[in-house]
Amino acid sequence: MACVSIPSTLDTDYSRLADIVELQDVDAYVHVGNGTDDMLRYLTRIDTEDNLAAFVLTADNSTVCLRPRYRSEAERKFPGDNIVETESGRGITDAISDVLEPDSVVRISHTTPVGVVRDLESFGSVDVVPEPDTVWCQKSDAEQQIAAHMADGVQRGIARAETVLAEAIVDDGAVRWQGEPLTTERLRREIQKELADLGFRGMGNVVIGAGDSCAELHFTGDVPIYAGETVLIDLGPRGPFGYFGDISRTFVPGEIGKWEREAFEVVREALDSAFDVLSDGAGLGTDELYLSMAEVIESYGFETGLHESRDDAVGLYHGTGHGIGVRIHEKPFQSRDTDAELQAGNVITIEPGLYDPERGGVRLEDVVVVEDNGYRNLMQYPYGLNPVNRNVTEVLNDD
Amino acid sequence: MACVSIPSTLDTDYSRLADIVELQDVDAYVHVGNGTDDMLRYLTRIDTEDNLAAFVLTADNSTVCLRPRYRSEAERKFPGDNIVETESGRGITDAISDVLEPDSVVRISHTTPVGVVRDLESFGSVDVVPEPDTVWCQKSDAEQQIAAHMADGVQRGIARAETVLAEAIVDDGAVRWQGEPLTTERLRREIQKELADLGFRGMGNVVIGAGDSCAELHFTGDVPIYAGETVLIDLGPRGPFGYFGDISRTFVPGEIGKWEREAFEVVREALDSAFDVLSDGAGLGTDELYLSMAEVIESYGFETGLHESRDDAVGLYHGTGHGIGVRIHEKPFQSRDTDAELQAGNVITIEPGLYDPERGGVRLEDVVVVEDNGYRNLMQYPYGLNPVNRNVTEVLNDD
Repeated sequence: MACVSIPSTLDTDYSRLADIVELQDVDAYVHVGNGTDDMLRYLTRIDTEDNLAAFVLTADNSTVCLRPRYRSEAERKFPGDNIVETESGRGITDAISDVLEPDSVVRISHTTPVGVVRDLESFGSVDVVPEPDTVWCQKSDAEQQIAAHMADGVQRGIARAETVLAEAIVDDGAVRWQGEPLTTERLRREIQKELADLGFRGMGNVVIGAGDSCAELHFTGDVPIYAGETVLIDLGPRGPFGYFGDISRTFVPGEIGKWEREAFEVVREALDSAFDVLSDGAGLGTDELYLSMAEVIESYGFETGLHESRDDAVGLYHGTGHGIGVRIHEKPFQSRDTDAELQAGNVITIEPGLYDPERGGVRLEDVVVVEDNGYRNLMQYPYGLNPVNRNVTEVLNDD
Repeated sequence: MACVSIPSTLDTDYSRLADIVELQDVDAYVHVGNGTDDMLRYLTRIDTEDNLAAFVLTADNSTVCLRPRYRSEAERKFPGDNIVETESGRGITDAISDVLEPDSVVRISHTTPVGVVRDLESFGSVDVVPEPDTVWCQKSDAEQQIAAHMADGVQRGIARAETVLAEAIVDDGAVRWQGEPLTTERLRREIQKELADLGFRGMGNVVIGAGDSCAELHFTGDVPIYAGETVLIDLGPRGPFGYFGDISRTFVPGEIGKWEREAFEVVREALDSAFDVLSDGAGLGTDELYLSMAEVIESYGFETGLHESRDDAVGLYHGTGHGIGVRIHEKPFQSRDTDAELQAGNVITIEPGLYDPERGGVRLEDVVVVEDNGYRNLMQYPYGLNPVNRNVTEVLNDD
């Protein structure tokens, strides 16, 4: 069990949503999706799996419409006012129509399935607006507690991976663990077992690159791990109320070559540079935060930009971080072209990286909470290429 | 590792899709979604996580549009013709417009985000049609192989749970395992570790009810397990290419009471009745299949219907099965009101259940492949309320 306790229910601030969707101009905001719709998850705190459900916010109250089988869960978890059951053979829009006055004017997110919008149009006026995806960016204390719980868990996942790599035996270029060749898939299973043991239900994609596949950024295939290669591990499991964790560390089993060591030092310096500007806290521009890292990378002669996996690029070709909550990648995003300012309560990743498609890649990633006059790093996990069998409890208690 | 080998690439029959969407009448079928869109997953065989991607089928060829980071994966797995990269700052519809002739007429699923449909309407004519969700119902040999792999895995998950329950010690009504009270969450973690060890990446919802929470059908909370209660376990993990597995078994730790034993016997008889009518194979009506089970339940004086979790109902209040593939619940569905006929190649669940909201519930679920003149049960796992520490390898090899 991860050591950070978590709340059993979670509030959602609907007044913030009402402001963002300008509810005063219309009769209701309606959000429709299934359990894979992150915004619906945030608004209702319920996971309706593959079943459509709806959230309806009016000036007077908030309602969730869902299948009867989720009523008990909704009674335990829905932070709003009313629960309406959809009935067999009725569409979700019939349940919504029970909540709205006739001829209502509703706002709805552009993410809504077009079929649902057309059904709603048959009994009201529908105004399609951008998804209100700034509603969740400033995390409450309870949400920050969950973020800390997730940080605790992903660090234990990395610790398990580092232990396996530390125990592995390097033999003439091959890497063997418990008598068999170590592959990215074997390492992934060890991490997933650790995450399962901690109670995580969604493993997300356990990204593990080895050597050149590190440059694919989100490689989830199965390849052998060789000595001297970078092994890039990026975990993004999903935990309580659907909140994600995120962490990246990079290790090299066996002897560490010149390119790998230099790449690591550059990324490490970029990370320090980010922490340096983050000490200003709220108000920092997302472009400034990006540049604090990109300029370090560039200063060593590497390219930066947003090419993603261009075969001919050696450098940093992704953004340097993003907000994280019930959506794994949410605002604020960090890149040269963003112009947002960090706000107190943002929970964001800081993840500079450096890749050479012919050699490998290094990425280091922590999650921090932005504060008025600084930041709080939710991670205590050391950075280091050389894998060490650590006492993770000591690591996590070392403030 | 589960013992059934799986293919490394998987074909998709686009000609079947072309027929269903009546491609001959329009220029293209377009499907847009992110990695949570099961249909996109089926059409492309790629998981683009939280990023929008598109599949475009014309009379001449098939194209996937996705972010550059997924190009390598698409080169390995996309069964169609062309890969188009979306570029930073461009919407997915810009990439789609590269593939289509100006002023094209396209069909698109009603599941598409309304914002995407409106963008597409700006450069062509868009015809919204029902999701072509019959395209995947008849599984190819390779897909059946994956279904068998998933069946193997979920049976190992159940075996782990049954072992824990068999090892548990009943002491004055309490159930303890390894020195601590056994709860649904502890049991869930043991199952998830087993699934992780087998290489499953998506755990799905590991549903475990104990006593009255069994009647919630999809209970995923944490409650203590008491002696004499039904413990209903329903696993639905996701495996290779996004295909789901599904199984349910019900156990009682400690002494088995009269209600529990009778409920089990009724459900067991319903299951046998289903297998009896299934021996006809393709052509069987989904309502007939439902009734084969519901009539057994009714013959013992219990209610049937589709109330889901009505507090006052004692009986069977869900459908008795569904197709399963890259979507966990897909056509053909089995209930009194369905009028489909089973087709050869359907992979379907058979899952009668019986619930009393004040006592508990029993559900038994296997997955079968419908054949022309019968069916093939992918499960070999025994039915039995009394938990036994089984040699799962022997169980699975017992044909």
